[in-house]
Amino acid sequence: MTSTHAPHWVIDMTLSAPSLGDNTADADRLASALKKALDVDTVHMDLNLLRQLPDQLRQWNYRLRAVVFKDIAGSGILVHLAAADSSQVCYGLAVDLGTTRVVLRLVDLKTGDHHGEVVFDNPQISVGPDVLARIHHVENKGGLAQLNQLIIDGLNAQLDQLCKAGDISPQQIHLLAIAGNTAMTHLLLGLNPRWIIREPYIPVVNQPGIMKSRDLGIKVHPDARAMVFPNVGSYFGGDLIAGMLYCDMDQREDTAILVDVGTNAEVVLGNRHWMMACAGAAGPALEGGVSRMGTTAGPGVIDRITIDPKSLHFDIHTIADQPARGICGSGVIDLAAALFRSAMIDIRGKLLPERCGERFSMRNGLGHLTIVPADQSGTGRDLCITQADLDSLIRSKAAMYTILETITGTVGMQQSDLETFFVAGTFGAYIDPISAITIGMIPDLALDCYQSLGNSSLGGTTRVLTDPGCVERVRHIRDSITYLELNVNQDFMNRFSAAKFLPHTDTRRFPSVQVPGNGSATNPP
Amino acid sequence: MTSTHAPHWVIDMTLSAPSLGDNTADADRLASALKKALDVDTVHMDLNLLRQLPDQLRQWNYRLRAVVFKDIAGSGILVHLAAADSSQVCYGLAVDLGTTRVVLRLVDLKTGDHHGEVVFDNPQISVGPDVLARIHHVENKGGLAQLNQLIIDGLNAQLDQLCKAGDISPQQIHLLAIAGNTAMTHLLLGLNPRWIIREPYIPVVNQPGIMKSRDLGIKVHPDARAMVFPNVGSYFGGDLIAGMLYCDMDQREDTAILVDVGTNAEVVLGNRHWMMACAGAAGPALEGGVSRMGTTAGPGVIDRITIDPKSLHFDIHTIADQPARGICGSGVIDLAAALFRSAMIDIRGKLLPERCGERFSMRNGLGHLTIVPADQSGTGRDLCITQADLDSLIRSKAAMYTILETITGTVGMQQSDLETFFVAGTFGAYIDPISAITIGMIPDLALDCYQSLGNSSLGGTTRVLTDPGCVERVRHIRDSITYLELNVNQDFMNRFSAAKFLPHTDTRRFPSVQVPGNGSATNPP
Repeated sequence: MTSTHAPHWVIDMTLSAPSLGDNTADADRLASALKKALDVDTVHMDLNLLRQLPDQLRQWNYRLRAVVFKDIAGSGILVHLAAADSSQVCYGLAVDLGTTRVVLRLVDLKTGDHHGEVVFDNPQISVGPDVLARIHHVENKGGLAQLNQLIIDGLNAQLDQLCKAGDISPQQIHLLAIAGNTAMTHLLLGLNPRWIIREPYIPVVNQPGIMKSRDLGIKVHPDARAMVFPNVGSYFGGDLIAGMLYCDMDQREDTAILVDVGTNAEVVLGNRHWMMACAGAAGPALEGGVSRMGTTAGPGVIDRITIDPKSLHFDIHTIADQPARGICGSGVIDLAAALFRSAMIDIRGKLLPERCGERFSMRNGLGHLTIVPADQSGTGRDLCITQADLDSLIRSKAAMYTILETITGTVGMQQSDLETFFVAGTFGAYIDPISAITIGMIPDLALDCYQSLGNSSLGGTTRVLTDPGCVERVRHIRDSITYLELNVNQDFMNRFSAAKFLPHTDTRRFPSVQVPGNGSATNPP
Repeated sequence: MTSTHAPHWVIDMTLSAPSLGDNTADADRLASALKKALDVDTVHMDLNLLRQLPDQLRQWNYRLRAVVFKDIAGSGILVHLAAADSSQVCYGLAVDLGTTRVVLRLVDLKTGDHHGEVVFDNPQISVGPDVLARIHHVENKGGLAQLNQLIIDGLNAQLDQLCKAGDISPQQIHLLAIAGNTAMTHLLLGLNPRWIIREPYIPVVNQPGIMKSRDLGIKVHPDARAMVFPNVGSYFGGDLIAGMLYCDMDQREDTAILVDVGTNAEVVLGNRHWMMACAGAAGPALEGGVSRMGTTAGPGVIDRITIDPKSLHFDIHTIADQPARGICGSGVIDLAAALFRSAMIDIRGKLLPERCGERFSMRNGLGHLTIVPADQSGTGRDLCITQADLDSLIRSKAAMYTILETITGTVGMQQSDLETFFVAGTFGAYIDPISAITIGMIPDLALDCYQSLGNSSLGGTTRVLTDPGCVERVRHIRDSITYLELNVNQDFMNRFSAAKFLPHTDTRRFPSVQVPGNGSATNPP
């Protein structure tokens, strides 16, 4: 695509000096140059910038560096001015505002280079681990203010550290781009999220737009602007829109699918002509399954597991090769696939005691499979997966598959027509597509169709800081999305039931998956 | 003209309540209704308004009153929200920011009713009486801040009084419209005006636009917005643009002329198709003349004077019928016209001692005419006009006439083609057109062509507060004006010289004026 946009938000320019033949006002002179560079009709300038302008222009001999931004209505905003030859780098801050973890990334607004990153737990975890618990906390007196303060204080403290580490002043940060789910966005803005989770599920705002960072309480340059990514609704947040921007879905000629396997199951299908999204309704099954079971990645957490189908030897890899103390989401999917391949679970995901041997035990009436015995684990206790965990995983994978089937079906596509399948989210980054295909969580596409995006929310916010065309693209993406309400009707439930087998009742959909045993998958009990 | 604009800035509306079939976000629901009412594409809402929105909408059952405004780029701004049945009146404040005097007027934003007015001396007078002195004061350390503080403090104090008198809280004021000349506007905004008076005469800003009143330091509702009228340049300020709005110049089919005889001579000629303005270059003559000589109107100041051409009896009227202690601008023009009619001055404006009799005296080598002798004056001293005063008046009136001649000539019109001649400004309000015609200050049009606008700057700011279409009109007026630089070239000087006679060298231009004496006006020495 050709673009008339300025190459970055930092523009070096030389204005013509005033004369009797050109006695334009200082601000108009600058605005006119900025309008041209930004291809906009108006440029807003704060009073405090205007107050310094006449002295600065003359002192700098009309050669200057402007940090600019655009609002969602398409007007330009003057954010900062410096001498053209200033040695001070102008930074932007990209913020991935996760429910569980928050990531900050410093970006050089001119070169696009990254200048450090920090990951930290969302301090709101102290109030509640998930979205629901935090929204309920708002009912308590001062609850909203407390949640808002927790994230703002956390951001400021981490930002300060990040700047210190990079020998940068927070005053050098002029632009922020922030993406989170709808609830996290509301808590960041101090907006009451209580109606997000109550029928008919109403957010306070879908398009927060561009605001002053200081109005949010974020301690960067006092004139800095923050773009908070818009939501489509209560269950489709700015993090997903950042992901769509990051994978250029809005500019692709071919139809791609983007799946974010995070706290919720969120799926977008589309291309430059149309985009369709769904999320939420079937999410709780997935959330209760994979995510809750999986431990946050860290030393000693199992992330890869294979089982020799003959010897049934478990080959386990832990992060940092420490003794095992948990298993993360990708490990659970690997485990389920390996158990299925080695016929230790059946097509319903039920543990087969005779095949599991001494790894199997009944505890409190619940089947357990020992992954790592107490004497080898990092906790001194058996590291187990239970039948309930596996049942939950089956429901989750079935929900994911059904959502994918539903959304492609809605636009008249076969899943097999998909050529590009983006997997977003830190969880998604570690999933082995072969394992996920084996359990029938995702369609049986050629492996090179699958592309892990990593933290696409952070990627999208970074893009906004380095490519002025992206503000308009974000607005366009938000406005273009058709949000598909997942009607959990009989049809959906039939598809869901069929997907609750490994890999599926219809094994023809998964030609690459070898179904062990007697092929009973085609004749479920 | 038909208009799609909302009838006022206060809009009562009932939103549809959210449902599963319409789960728009609260802010989007409100924005969509406001966009329709205001006929705009976007509506900006501050974070602090958004924070209260969800509770308010539900508490008010989606029936609400919104105070809105528009920025110059044509976007809507949500300024305030209240319940639809709130009994609290929403006010606007119109501000005429004069160099000498400031006028505040409270306006009911819904009905347009005026709720009190206050006139006070611009407190910056303590620093300097005129624009030039104040701009020079900026060179002193802290001078700009001092001047800014003087006017802001003055505004706040007077506003407070005005509100107390009307039993209104300043918190009920949500919109402000402010018009002043370019220098006064700069000082109000805290912008350095130093380059306004230095070649090539560059203001800091021409379009201050819409800002938060609190950013200006004006103590009204913290979310209130202020529209500061734009300037065309250093010598054509927002007060004139307010005047053009007030007389609907931009909507008239016929060509009208607007003359503001204030500190400066400012003239606009135009209609709905084009507008041409000039001001400044020849102004100092007028300023040094009429305005400086004239005392501010007040008790004991002569505002009307006639002389019986036979008895030479002076019939003097003073304000409040107090003993005379000065003469205001309109009195000076009356006096000059009367002296001319009674042949006490010649066509050059020179005092004729033999005709003036005992009223004439030479003091310090300068001719004096006693208007009121010491024993009848309010000062105990002779109230006189000097030959220097008269010379200055002649230069002033000649400058005014020449500017009028030049601007009409530029567009190919004769002055006699003019059908509507608006005279603006408090000074203008008192001028007797017959006297002004007699001395050849203004063209010899039918008297009903002349319309006194009074304080048109205040009138224009009031219009903006009560008619939402006016924000766009102000922008349009500003952008449409062709500013005519008065080239003081030989041509101009020739016209100026010809106009330095009473009423003019070419008496055919003033058929209504009886030239006394021997008709030497057609043969000037």
